[in-house]
Amino acid sequence: MVGGGQLARMTHEAGIPLGIRFKLLSDTPQDSAAQVVSDVVIGDYRDLDTLREFARGCDVITFDHEHVPIEHLRALEADGIPVRPGPDALVHAQDKGVMRAKLDAIGIPCPRHRIVTDPEDVVRFAAEGDGFPVVLKTVRGGYDGKGVWVVETPEEATDPFRAGVPVLAEEKVDYVRELAACVVRSPHGQAVAYPVVESRQVGGVCDTVIAPAPDLDDSLALQAERMALTIAKELDVVGHLAVELFQTRNADGSSSVLVNELAMRPHNSGHWTQDGAITSQFANHVRAILDLPLGDPRPRAKWTVMVNVLGGDYPDMYSAYLHCMARDPKLKIHMYGKDVKPGRKVGHVNTYGDDLDDVLERARHAAGYLRGTITE
Amino acid sequence: MVGGGQLARMTHEAGIPLGIRFKLLSDTPQDSAAQVVSDVVIGDYRDLDTLREFARGCDVITFDHEHVPIEHLRALEADGIPVRPGPDALVHAQDKGVMRAKLDAIGIPCPRHRIVTDPEDVVRFAAEGDGFPVVLKTVRGGYDGKGVWVVETPEEATDPFRAGVPVLAEEKVDYVRELAACVVRSPHGQAVAYPVVESRQVGGVCDTVIAPAPDLDDSLALQAERMALTIAKELDVVGHLAVELFQTRNADGSSSVLVNELAMRPHNSGHWTQDGAITSQFANHVRAILDLPLGDPRPRAKWTVMVNVLGGDYPDMYSAYLHCMARDPKLKIHMYGKDVKPGRKVGHVNTYGDDLDDVLERARHAAGYLRGTITE
Repeated sequence: MVGGGQLARMTHEAGIPLGIRFKLLSDTPQDSAAQVVSDVVIGDYRDLDTLREFARGCDVITFDHEHVPIEHLRALEADGIPVRPGPDALVHAQDKGVMRAKLDAIGIPCPRHRIVTDPEDVVRFAAEGDGFPVVLKTVRGGYDGKGVWVVETPEEATDPFRAGVPVLAEEKVDYVRELAACVVRSPHGQAVAYPVVESRQVGGVCDTVIAPAPDLDDSLALQAERMALTIAKELDVVGHLAVELFQTRNADGSSSVLVNELAMRPHNSGHWTQDGAITSQFANHVRAILDLPLGDPRPRAKWTVMVNVLGGDYPDMYSAYLHCMARDPKLKIHMYGKDVKPGRKVGHVNTYGDDLDDVLERARHAAGYLRGTITE
Repeated sequence: MVGGGQLARMTHEAGIPLGIRFKLLSDTPQDSAAQVVSDVVIGDYRDLDTLREFARGCDVITFDHEHVPIEHLRALEADGIPVRPGPDALVHAQDKGVMRAKLDAIGIPCPRHRIVTDPEDVVRFAAEGDGFPVVLKTVRGGYDGKGVWVVETPEEATDPFRAGVPVLAEEKVDYVRELAACVVRSPHGQAVAYPVVESRQVGGVCDTVIAPAPDLDDSLALQAERMALTIAKELDVVGHLAVELFQTRNADGSSSVLVNELAMRPHNSGHWTQDGAITSQFANHVRAILDLPLGDPRPRAKWTVMVNVLGGDYPDMYSAYLHCMARDPKLKIHMYGKDVKPGRKVGHVNTYGDDLDDVLERARHAAGYLRGTITE
């Protein structure tokens, strides 16, 4: 696996029971996954020679992030190393312009969008629809709210063009809430769909995931799952695919979904599956890239809630553990071994049960206490 | 953790979500746990200098097995390293004579027993009760049926004395079935009890565990859990304690339990908890030795079944995985990364559900297929 972040850490954890020999390419020995994996190579994933040396002896290469240059992935494939997901799929996760063009071509509903060339073009884009605000995104390099601007005036539309990367303009969708449809697909074409979840963001960063999404119309849930399965198939995704969605309300009171973003790897919106599904997203990602039959994605509890733990007041979690574990013996804590920096994702908690209010309260309390924003 | 077997492997897996820095002392780099842990020291646990060097910088030392010499553990404690469970507890798991004497002293029912000095003394022991057969055990060094003899005649009673280790004689209990009561206890005295399970042995090796034990009288289950909690407290066990029990039928038709063996570490009879309990034995062992509040031990499913996978026809599990995973998408496989040798425990499977017959069949089929004894 290329990339030493928490997704690699949790993928290794999920691979241990399968007897998988897990090899990691990590930037530093202190990275989240490098702390817990036996076979670690320290190196730069942007360097082809490093990648080639790392890949030697691997049965398959997969990724903790989407930043490995596509041409390097093609070179690995030319060397005979299976790359999953492959470069032809990953390009859609790396470049939002390519992604939007492909989703348009296969008939997947998206926010109104087009590539814009300069601030004047942004004004034209706004005029083509309902005017400002407009969402501007650099087509490459963004994540967790970075590389995304919501502009209210032409004057605000200058920053995104400074990076020298093409800029995608999108209508600012007046959504009811955000959803995520996660699926896993294997090379021989088997696919499973997890229940559609509600994802609540704070400051552009995922904060809370509720599985399944409460009060979601069955037909809309089915439509969202089918869209994710279609995208996985049409883009030839292998492994876990997260499709981030906007749920919108139509004039007649009905709801629709529009695709916001794609991620082709285990994803924050699937962390609930570790404790809430029969097979976790990490276990199914491992099974998919090895072309093993996929595990059952169905939930084990009526409700599962995931809340991210952001860096806060506790550099050492021990004393916070004492409180959280004593208060809630059913709480599931997942920490990433990262140094605590304000606002950085350093872990998450999962709770599950029959009463959504209770499950939500327990997860929020624990995440707030671990961060230091709740002190009782 | 001292010892690189599968218990260490699965303890590491359970510690990853808690952000635990796990350091391993392993005999070889190929050992089950050494394959998946970042921080591994290769060395001999029987050498005090090796242990001391390994222990430097550890917050606490715990064990994959019970074979570390007690005097070495006392030396580590004298160095200021917390050893959990401590030597005063572990001596009861290392020496069956000490264990029986202690259980007698605290009023825990055991099979009739005493230390015997030679084959003639075995004849006297038999005559003191119902005669032959008699069970002979070397007080130290036995596991999985090794170091245990069932003798029918005085002539057969010579082998056990050849090892130069004291020999314990026990009545051969005419039991209905074997049970196990597993508890976890922390240094400050918190303890949790897992539901009592039925354990089925084949050739002295654990084969199948059913959780909870079917048709077990509530009062007998409570008595077994209380016995395990009492033993943990009176022997000052820290961490996971497995109490292996014989269920016997009394003349009046009622049932009793007698203690067979103790294990002070995660144990085969608790492997079902990985997929069947809210908190696994491994997670609770980690929490206990770190004196963190313990997790909820209750089951998540009506029935959970664990069946061990023994080494058989498949040196490579990949093709067996294809069949097992495709047949049962809910199957939970736990392999240890060990070289396959006939009869060696190389993994286990867990299944769970509402219908015990179905759950048992799925686990048996998968374990048999992985071993190669079932081919369809």
